[in-house]
Amino acid sequence: MKKSVILTAFIASIMALSSCTTSSTPNATADQSTGNAALECILTRTSVRQYQPDRTISRDTVETLLRAAMSAPTAVNKQPWAFIALDDRAALDSLAQVLPYARMLTKAPLAIVTCGDLSKAIDGEDADKGFWIQDVSAATENLLLAAHAMGLGAVWTGVYPDAERVKDVQERLGLPANVIPLAVVPVGYPTGPQKPKEKWDPANVHFNKW
Amino acid sequence: MKKSVILTAFIASIMALSSCTTSSTPNATADQSTGNAALECILTRTSVRQYQPDRTISRDTVETLLRAAMSAPTAVNKQPWAFIALDDRAALDSLAQVLPYARMLTKAPLAIVTCGDLSKAIDGEDADKGFWIQDVSAATENLLLAAHAMGLGAVWTGVYPDAERVKDVQERLGLPANVIPLAVVPVGYPTGPQKPKEKWDPANVHFNKW
Repeated sequence: MKKSVILTAFIASIMALSSCTTSSTPNATADQSTGNAALECILTRTSVRQYQPDRTISRDTVETLLRAAMSAPTAVNKQPWAFIALDDRAALDSLAQVLPYARMLTKAPLAIVTCGDLSKAIDGEDADKGFWIQDVSAATENLLLAAHAMGLGAVWTGVYPDAERVKDVQERLGLPANVIPLAVVPVGYPTGPQKPKEKWDPANVHFNKW
Repeated sequence: MKKSVILTAFIASIMALSSCTTSSTPNATADQSTGNAALECILTRTSVRQYQPDRTISRDTVETLLRAAMSAPTAVNKQPWAFIALDDRAALDSLAQVLPYARMLTKAPLAIVTCGDLSKAIDGEDADKGFWIQDVSAATENLLLAAHAMGLGAVWTGVYPDAERVKDVQERLGLPANVIPLAVVPVGYPTGPQKPKEKWDPANVHFNKW
């Protein structure tokens, strides 16, 4: 796959160029610059629910988004996840029909469904227990940040633990019973500038004890 | 608080300088550069369990980490979270005594305990149900990425849903019953370069259906 090779080379090149990798002898200037860009991406990400029409997203971009998602940490490195990328209009519209909070799927060129795969989880088959929820949530956050980093906009719409939504998404996508959809993330090019919510609140912070 | 004003100005300045904010008229060159740095931060983050001795972390840095954490999305914007920052040696050591997987706390200059606050959750008081786990997990991932962006290293050590760990951490930190510790994140300056795990696996990816 030539495209895949090019993408892998691209990712290798930005990783080699960068100094965000931790180092005992950091280049302070480069570190600060790349570090600031990464921080700023985290601080400015916000939910994007409206997308430019007629602007599609390539499968190479989808791969970059999913590489970011799979870079999240997982308990005991089990990587108990699976991802369904929807870029077919009929598939996106079909999912919109059963998800009241994800109607923007009908206008999005792409959605990623982030799932837990209980067959890989350390906790066994009880979906309501264990670390897979945390693992897949971290992957979903990485996906949102990577979209923002690439000039895309995305929004986390919840599926699990709403039993009805889980069942509906499983049915529409043909998921096996051990694959639990956690979130549906519509993605597209934003229609305009986005203002992040101000959520910093010092009242949420305690030092050394409650 | 003068330091706080300076920090806020710093964050405002990196946000103003940056073009990671989505825009309808993006500056392509700047976007790509800052976007690549953010992507690279996501792709190179890894768990760091050993820290440089005698190197402390300022409270301004703690604030930046927590601003990043609180930039995560939450279901219905409930922000059902609380954070306990431990930078007191006795507090760090006390927690290490009850957490078998977080012994590195005894060598870390800082830890952040990320918690759900059920009194703010949309799901009510049943800790095992609802979106707070996902919200606090997204915040925890932001915290790890922000640490990496600033040249720090961190590791996600799990607390919830292990009932014994939850109880032990609640007791040691004096948490109210409605505040559930999800993870303990030791933070410090890495002792050397870190190599991220290769976790990309195309077998985890499906297009449009399973």
